[in-house]
Amino acid sequence: MKDKPKISNAVIKRLPRYRRYLKELQRKGVDKISSNEFSALIGYTASQIRQDLNNFGGFGQQGYGYNVDALYNEISAILGLDREYKMVIIGAGNLGQALANHTYYYKTGFVVSAIFEVNPKLIGMSINDIKVMDYESIVEYVEDNAIDIGVICTTKESAQEVADKLCFAGIRGIWNFAPIDIEVPGHVALENMHLTDSLHSLAYHMNRMDDNSQDSVSKKK
Amino acid sequence: MKDKPKISNAVIKRLPRYRRYLKELQRKGVDKISSNEFSALIGYTASQIRQDLNNFGGFGQQGYGYNVDALYNEISAILGLDREYKMVIIGAGNLGQALANHTYYYKTGFVVSAIFEVNPKLIGMSINDIKVMDYESIVEYVEDNAIDIGVICTTKESAQEVADKLCFAGIRGIWNFAPIDIEVPGHVALENMHLTDSLHSLAYHMNRMDDNSQDSVSKKK
Repeated sequence: MKDKPKISNAVIKRLPRYRRYLKELQRKGVDKISSNEFSALIGYTASQIRQDLNNFGGFGQQGYGYNVDALYNEISAILGLDREYKMVIIGAGNLGQALANHTYYYKTGFVVSAIFEVNPKLIGMSINDIKVMDYESIVEYVEDNAIDIGVICTTKESAQEVADKLCFAGIRGIWNFAPIDIEVPGHVALENMHLTDSLHSLAYHMNRMDDNSQDSVSKKK
Repeated sequence: MKDKPKISNAVIKRLPRYRRYLKELQRKGVDKISSNEFSALIGYTASQIRQDLNNFGGFGQQGYGYNVDALYNEISAILGLDREYKMVIIGAGNLGQALANHTYYYKTGFVVSAIFEVNPKLIGMSINDIKVMDYESIVEYVEDNAIDIGVICTTKESAQEVADKLCFAGIRGIWNFAPIDIEVPGHVALENMHLTDSLHSLAYHMNRMDDNSQDSVSKKK
């Protein structure tokens, strides 16, 4: 465990959001911010913010607030965003192509090295200057190029097999967009993006809103 | 509040997942399942499952287990998936196009009626037989066609303005893919898909794994 603290998953989930808001503050030229000001901005309570950031030793100073640059850099380092990651995308369908074209990732250190496909019509194409390669060669490619992350954009039927292959090839993390829960060995990190789960949650909340249409509390997530 | 129970957000977040697994069981011809069997499958504890499903009056019978069809239909109804929703997508970039092409939604009752764009080169095109229309006409269109959900696939700079327009036009739910937190009135449901937040969580977990590489607990989310 070295000397890094054990941090709850709930806190980790909030860190990227803190980071986004800090980046916005940097852009606006803000140097420091109190937990109360930060609270008004981000929508968490000031005490939640203090508690969250205390997990990392606490960067705030009583009566001064948080140094925006220092906190941004510290959170970036905690998230591991102070280095570059090499990704491959598996599946050159609509979603795979959309992600390959999403230049935002490159700006933030996530570089797509290759896209893998089984469809012979797509193999050999380039998307956003990234080569679409034969899925057959994925294990060799991941090994030879020390790829960090596999992004699964296949059907749910293929997702587990793809994950198994990636893990066999020594991948360190899997970002799964297939609408199924996949299993990975304990040393591989897994993050699921279940789009339909999110859409179904939205449907639920829309129907609850109809039931409670007399309320008008501001909703912020 | 009518007579529907108040259910925590954490439970709601798990319902689409229960539903996915129940659908899988239906496909395999399974009629009933005990909470222990369900637990082995879905990865929540049996007591968690019983507690979650008790929120809805509990569909299980002691010594029998859950009726798969009944539970599936009940969860679908709770989520509001027993009806159809009309969606519009705003932004015909890569992500907007990927979502428009994602036929899975249609099968599950989410129908994309139109895509809205500001780029004159894209207006007039069709994507998956869905018309790309001028963003200028969005308020009229949403009003006239009783659109339920707006899917924001714009840049983060435009997202709030688009949300404001959708809310003005009477939208009931917003599915936001722009990498920014938007604000909506209390009667509008909001669900965010922050792709980069998820990727940053993945980076964090990958780095934690490196720290703990001696552990090998199975990880399942």
